[in-house]
Amino acid sequence: MSRLRAALDPKSIAIIGASDNPNKVGGRPVHFLGKFGFKGKIYPINPTRPEIQGHKSYASLQDLPEAPEMVIVAVAGDNAIAAVEDCAAAGVKVAVVMASGFGEVDQIAGKAKERRMVEAARKAGMRIVGPNSQGLANFGTGAIASFSTMFVEMEPAAANAKGHVAMLSQSGALSTVPVGFLRQRGIAVRHTHATGNDSDITVGELACAVAEDPEVKLMLLYLESIPDKAYLEELAAIALDRDLPIIALKSGRTEAGKAAAQSHTGALANEDRVVDAFFEHHGIWRAPDMRGLVEATELYLKGWKPQGRRLVAISNSGAVCVLTADAATQVGMPMAKLASETDAKLKSILPGFATTTNPIDLTAALLSNSALFGDILPVIAKDPAADAFLIGVPVAGPGYDVPAFSRDTAAFAEQTGKPVVVAATQPSVAQVFAANGTSVFPTEVEAVSALHQFLAHHELMFRARSRRATRPPSEALITPRAETLMLNEADSLALLSSRGVPVVPHRLCLSRSEAVAAFTLIDGPVVVKGCSADIAHKSELGLVRLGVTSADATGAIYTEMEQIIAKAGARFDGVIVAAMAGGRREMMIGAHRDPVFGPVVVIGDGGKYVEVFRDTKLLLPPFAAADVHDALKGLRIAPLFAGAHGEPPMDVDAFVEAVVRVGEIMRDESAGVVSIDLNPVMLGSAGEGCVVVDAVVFHGA
Amino acid sequence: MSRLRAALDPKSIAIIGASDNPNKVGGRPVHFLGKFGFKGKIYPINPTRPEIQGHKSYASLQDLPEAPEMVIVAVAGDNAIAAVEDCAAAGVKVAVVMASGFGEVDQIAGKAKERRMVEAARKAGMRIVGPNSQGLANFGTGAIASFSTMFVEMEPAAANAKGHVAMLSQSGALSTVPVGFLRQRGIAVRHTHATGNDSDITVGELACAVAEDPEVKLMLLYLESIPDKAYLEELAAIALDRDLPIIALKSGRTEAGKAAAQSHTGALANEDRVVDAFFEHHGIWRAPDMRGLVEATELYLKGWKPQGRRLVAISNSGAVCVLTADAATQVGMPMAKLASETDAKLKSILPGFATTTNPIDLTAALLSNSALFGDILPVIAKDPAADAFLIGVPVAGPGYDVPAFSRDTAAFAEQTGKPVVVAATQPSVAQVFAANGTSVFPTEVEAVSALHQFLAHHELMFRARSRRATRPPSEALITPRAETLMLNEADSLALLSSRGVPVVPHRLCLSRSEAVAAFTLIDGPVVVKGCSADIAHKSELGLVRLGVTSADATGAIYTEMEQIIAKAGARFDGVIVAAMAGGRREMMIGAHRDPVFGPVVVIGDGGKYVEVFRDTKLLLPPFAAADVHDALKGLRIAPLFAGAHGEPPMDVDAFVEAVVRVGEIMRDESAGVVSIDLNPVMLGSAGEGCVVVDAVVFHGA
Repeated sequence: MSRLRAALDPKSIAIIGASDNPNKVGGRPVHFLGKFGFKGKIYPINPTRPEIQGHKSYASLQDLPEAPEMVIVAVAGDNAIAAVEDCAAAGVKVAVVMASGFGEVDQIAGKAKERRMVEAARKAGMRIVGPNSQGLANFGTGAIASFSTMFVEMEPAAANAKGHVAMLSQSGALSTVPVGFLRQRGIAVRHTHATGNDSDITVGELACAVAEDPEVKLMLLYLESIPDKAYLEELAAIALDRDLPIIALKSGRTEAGKAAAQSHTGALANEDRVVDAFFEHHGIWRAPDMRGLVEATELYLKGWKPQGRRLVAISNSGAVCVLTADAATQVGMPMAKLASETDAKLKSILPGFATTTNPIDLTAALLSNSALFGDILPVIAKDPAADAFLIGVPVAGPGYDVPAFSRDTAAFAEQTGKPVVVAATQPSVAQVFAANGTSVFPTEVEAVSALHQFLAHHELMFRARSRRATRPPSEALITPRAETLMLNEADSLALLSSRGVPVVPHRLCLSRSEAVAAFTLIDGPVVVKGCSADIAHKSELGLVRLGVTSADATGAIYTEMEQIIAKAGARFDGVIVAAMAGGRREMMIGAHRDPVFGPVVVIGDGGKYVEVFRDTKLLLPPFAAADVHDALKGLRIAPLFAGAHGEPPMDVDAFVEAVVRVGEIMRDESAGVVSIDLNPVMLGSAGEGCVVVDAVVFHGA
Repeated sequence: MSRLRAALDPKSIAIIGASDNPNKVGGRPVHFLGKFGFKGKIYPINPTRPEIQGHKSYASLQDLPEAPEMVIVAVAGDNAIAAVEDCAAAGVKVAVVMASGFGEVDQIAGKAKERRMVEAARKAGMRIVGPNSQGLANFGTGAIASFSTMFVEMEPAAANAKGHVAMLSQSGALSTVPVGFLRQRGIAVRHTHATGNDSDITVGELACAVAEDPEVKLMLLYLESIPDKAYLEELAAIALDRDLPIIALKSGRTEAGKAAAQSHTGALANEDRVVDAFFEHHGIWRAPDMRGLVEATELYLKGWKPQGRRLVAISNSGAVCVLTADAATQVGMPMAKLASETDAKLKSILPGFATTTNPIDLTAALLSNSALFGDILPVIAKDPAADAFLIGVPVAGPGYDVPAFSRDTAAFAEQTGKPVVVAATQPSVAQVFAANGTSVFPTEVEAVSALHQFLAHHELMFRARSRRATRPPSEALITPRAETLMLNEADSLALLSSRGVPVVPHRLCLSRSEAVAAFTLIDGPVVVKGCSADIAHKSELGLVRLGVTSADATGAIYTEMEQIIAKAGARFDGVIVAAMAGGRREMMIGAHRDPVFGPVVVIGDGGKYVEVFRDTKLLLPPFAAADVHDALKGLRIAPLFAGAHGEPPMDVDAFVEAVVRVGEIMRDESAGVVSIDLNPVMLGSAGEGCVVVDAVVFHGA
């Protein structure tokens, strides 16, 4: 931890506004530093008392025997600003500012106060955590610069030093609530940091530093907004390099949530689907809610190297077998098909009324013969079709040898090295399994959900790592210029064509006679469109005519459109005469620049109802053809590509190629393209390709 | 409980195969009857011992001083059959058969053994529970005729007599696992019954009897298959009459689950979407999984009469406010817009950095002033916009007056009479709220999910009750005859038209000259279709020609199609000349008879990809226009009906009317219709109506 060392592992900590009452904001850190075994120097600062919680108290920063590496600023309002200025002057390395009432309350005056503190700090080379921060807590070093109420009921140092989980958040409550859940499951946490308003050190920068702590095996994040992607990209890179899984709960998914986040932390609203795409691109698992943030934690700490998703379920309840098969299928984990030798061996062990196909139902026969369980596990362990295991013991007690089940399960997990989870309703049973190091969930649905998350996250990280290995990292963000220009359709098509995106055969005609000639050249019914860089919605002005069948008509329409455009007071850029594009499905390709995440490419089902159905997927450049194929598989219309209803397959490769080209245009700063809207892109049968029929491109001014 | 009284409240119970060991199948019921305070006579039957668990033991049924009302058959295999025959002969009223190895193992020989027992019982007027039954447990009467391991760790009578929840299942484990979860939350259960193979008394029949117990306030069901709908319909009717909510977990949702259910209980596979529609129709809430079955239980027992879904959230954590807004929006609960007076009053109470709009963020200011909480609740209680409340206390402890929060919350709930839930991570905090009778969940997402279920279930029951009030109950099921006949298209269209379903203008022509005349009559491009009751897929044989533009061509096609049909060796029923139907969207209406649930009408997006996209909803006749409108709102294409993209609205009323007519055809036994497939049904703009273009009707032979 060379980065931000003074924030995570300071040698000395002073507390401005220290209180003798361990339940006051200024008293808690003093108490926690003692309780959690901080080895460095502790300097309470409070001019009204000689001693604070057994430590000598100092009247001011100037009275300390040394400049402390970290200062906790536990005084309120403008006093906090003055304290920060004092810290900067005194050569402090990091100030943790707990006071509220800054940018989170007042976007103008509050933010200005934050800037004042940050400027003072920058000049002196000091860093700031906060303001409005609940504080930092590194249980590995005992540096608990926090006033969290959650730590009051936490066990002291010993238990926590073994922790391998890091939890980071701007929010105080959300930095500690997951910790509370994990403690209830007996899982210790190493880092718990709440960065508050992120005026200087952001949660992302701190996460990069924490990710370098080799003891951290799993990182959890709670984010209300992502104002800047750079640190998250760096974090993801560090994490992929050292195989550190990251799970993020990003709230503000809905409009109501975004509004509440704005009130809470002045959060900038991110476009939620872009956030999804960003996390996926970087191998970060997005938890749907608080429960999803913590639910699978234990599985990440086992050191398993999963090879697949095929599940084997074993239970003494047939109903649990049924529910497990339902739950697994619904999340996309197939039930493994066991070998016939496995089946034969199971049949020789189990009674006739048991079920030997997967899911394996031991039935209530287990009540008469507790050895059944230990007898079948080694048989199943040898079957190569099994990637992961769920053992359901919904009810047990007197008559069942639960300690033996637990030992057999632990031995089985050891033997296979594959993921094994147990579902056990009764705490009395769950405790016996947990005591032997097995991960236990109250129901099969929670067990399957956690297992699925762990396996799918592993696959996500694998894909993100391969993507990184084969392609250059994302470039610095091109900030879209405020002024953008719409290209006329002819220029839009020309730009696309020059970059290798197939467009419909067409001619831009600047006279009636050129239009007539174009008809003859194209030879067949044509589409005639008026062309003007001032007119985005051509149809509404009568500037699109489909199925024109004669040269004369084409000429007449030319004249008519010239007049319409003149009447509209718009530039006349000519008239496009284009072939009637064939194809079987109207697709769409869009692209824009997200203010935070940069270029975003949207692909999917096209046509006029694209906004109604939104059957689209997002891709973040750089991406390759394989990524586009993966994205297409997630569309609702995906079954059509292979040919539904007896139809031949479509030319998906051609569409993928066009999407890749659009991604390249968006990555190329010199192209200066701000947004692209191609709809429809007509997709034909295999070998027929695809063509862009309508195109609107916006360019930097 | 007049029905099946001897099963639920027997005056005397004998146990054939009684064991002195309370952990054997035959020992458990003896033990439980004592433990849970059964007041009737207990007669252990075991010829090898004079006494069983302190009760006098009898050598045989004949040796008892009276014919017991209930006999528990705890002997295995063929001995169980003999015991049942003895019971029948002795005048026993109900036999509970625990032995396994019958129909669940062997569909032929096993089922035959079951029939033998049932026949013996029927002759004597005895009823049977099981075989393969874990048994019945009525904690209200102490009649625990069960060998469940779960009851070993359960408290005796006192706690359970207060229970108001009934749990019924065929499966033993699944009848008790929910009970275990509820006990962990301090909720007592009154009935827990596992009926096993349902050879005589089914879980549905028993549920009807249990639903008549006035102490039951909530009924939970676990079902692996629904072989017969009659008892469930009766159960739903009883439940709606007395306002008893029913939550059902029906497994076998997926193919893997169905296969496992087949192995477990020989379950017949129900079509899952029809099950959904059936439960919805009858006001039964379908739980997605075990967790969903029990999660909201407490809320049902409060006696709340909810009026709407608008949520108010209050927390000392801004992040919990954000997460609650996200969670509520995602399940369809809007955040209530509070009155400006409420806002003004809250502003006068809370510090400036708190948020007074809903969700209300008290901030960490609550740590300094625990009274804030009690001060704001009465203000919010008066706001009429609030339908339900969530109070989030993610972290509390020393410094917070949690007992005061808990008292204030309880008083607030009492004052408003509206649903109130608390989300509290820490068990130490949750316990304080729970002690005052408040429902507490570990996270906001679980609290919102439970609240949503409770409110949405209430709405579902309200709709089911109104449906029942205005319409006659479903008639007895018309069993589809094995032999069905396809009508030719002309007959199909004629049948629909005679029943008021609008069909495309057309003529069935039996000669070339009739075809020529039909073209002239229809006046315009026509569709020409060969008509044969032997040919279902006309297009593939070239028997559909669109856009025919002349009388001559129509005549020529007539001759051609006559030849095609002759060549195919099929009946020639003529040629249909039809108008080219306009309209804006291809819809579909289908109907069939489910072997269990009877008539099912399927409506939705039509066209050739109907099976690919499956944007359809199911309706169970009888239904009214309002039900069809509700179903259409659930379609993915729903936004198109009101007019998307600047288009005018569509004639939804006309489509709804056509669907209602199809429902009537399916309900009318005299119509003899087995299935209907109308696709496309062209739907036009408002006022333009809809017309059936293609129709295939199957009729009973």
